[in-house]
Amino acid sequence: MTIQAIAFDAYGTLFDVYSIGALAERLFPGNGAQLAELWRDKQIEYTRLRTMCSTYKPFWEVTQDALVFSCRKLGLDLTLDAQNSLMGQYAKLQSFPENLGVLRKLKDMGLKLAILSNGNPQMLDSAVEAAGMRSIFHHILSVDTVKKFKTAPEAYQLAPDVFGLSARNILFVSSNCWDACGASWFGYTTFWVNRANAPLEELGVTPDATGSDMTSLLQFVKKHIGEPK
Amino acid sequence: MTIQAIAFDAYGTLFDVYSIGALAERLFPGNGAQLAELWRDKQIEYTRLRTMCSTYKPFWEVTQDALVFSCRKLGLDLTLDAQNSLMGQYAKLQSFPENLGVLRKLKDMGLKLAILSNGNPQMLDSAVEAAGMRSIFHHILSVDTVKKFKTAPEAYQLAPDVFGLSARNILFVSSNCWDACGASWFGYTTFWVNRANAPLEELGVTPDATGSDMTSLLQFVKKHIGEPK
Repeated sequence: MTIQAIAFDAYGTLFDVYSIGALAERLFPGNGAQLAELWRDKQIEYTRLRTMCSTYKPFWEVTQDALVFSCRKLGLDLTLDAQNSLMGQYAKLQSFPENLGVLRKLKDMGLKLAILSNGNPQMLDSAVEAAGMRSIFHHILSVDTVKKFKTAPEAYQLAPDVFGLSARNILFVSSNCWDACGASWFGYTTFWVNRANAPLEELGVTPDATGSDMTSLLQFVKKHIGEPK
Repeated sequence: MTIQAIAFDAYGTLFDVYSIGALAERLFPGNGAQLAELWRDKQIEYTRLRTMCSTYKPFWEVTQDALVFSCRKLGLDLTLDAQNSLMGQYAKLQSFPENLGVLRKLKDMGLKLAILSNGNPQMLDSAVEAAGMRSIFHHILSVDTVKKFKTAPEAYQLAPDVFGLSARNILFVSSNCWDACGASWFGYTTFWVNRANAPLEELGVTPDATGSDMTSLLQFVKKHIGEPK
């Protein structure tokens, strides 16, 4: 394999979605971690149901729906203030600490970099700005263009199209194992940032490489970087 | 709406998937409930990923993959004996106690009844046999025919095709809210058997009716039953 460009998942990979757990805990003492986890699970579940049933709506709205459901399920009273506060946090998520340095090094190596995310353009813009990553990416690709969330092939097709490269020559990086597996099925070279030391999904497919944070990505890329033809 | 036929989801609706929790608890004391829940969640997650990525494999195998992953995630040592035991239980799940009586009454009302399930034919056959439901159903429809799991429209299309009715004249019954919502999106009249008193999914769609067990289905059907045209 020869890597000529890299496409990054955003939520969970570049931006720490579980960082909202602290705010959730302040708003709902004793339930923050559970709410953050259920919220994330529901958000992903709803993207899949809406993709399978062709009932797409933007990720921001899906995220809000998932929050409303999760609070109802946990018996938490979600005031409008609390909702705005949690959604507002989602718009300016923390980046993982090593990410900006790694991204700059990858860019200095001459690689073209993109985000390929379920997020709609407005929320991606906001997160990229908050993380100081404005100058890093050549493309910020949102599935909103195709109205299907990952792991639909139409979503993964966005990066090969914009780079003019075959998926095998693009490295797809995600901290979500299911996303790395979906991208592998699609044909990308894949790197799983396994921050949580989670077991590999039992899907009959394995990412090409795995590391515990983004730093380990650098070594993999150095080995496989290729000159653009 | 006029109901002329009924299609039932199988797992969770006719057959009690959580009944394996007791066996799981015997095999893994202290972890049975957690294993049963994670196993079920993963099983459904894998059906969705495989449908979105066109990597179908039969529900039996998906179920086994989900079990293997769940034990690994929970740090449980899944011996081959334990695996066979749990999968064997899955092949002969308990039916919910009121189901057989309700199904007989619906049949006596002249309604055509079908199962429409993610399960592959062999595992459905085995479960129907174990539950004493062999003579009840006119059709046992498996998504294996179309190689896409629910909530894909190709899966829901199976019942209208076999009954020669429009989806709106078929009542789709499921204990899984996401399944009732998917069927509503597709066009069925829908009934959600909300056994667990769960909150409605935040998907912008509501089943036509909801009851706490299958008995309440009878009243709804009596109100809306129609003569075949």
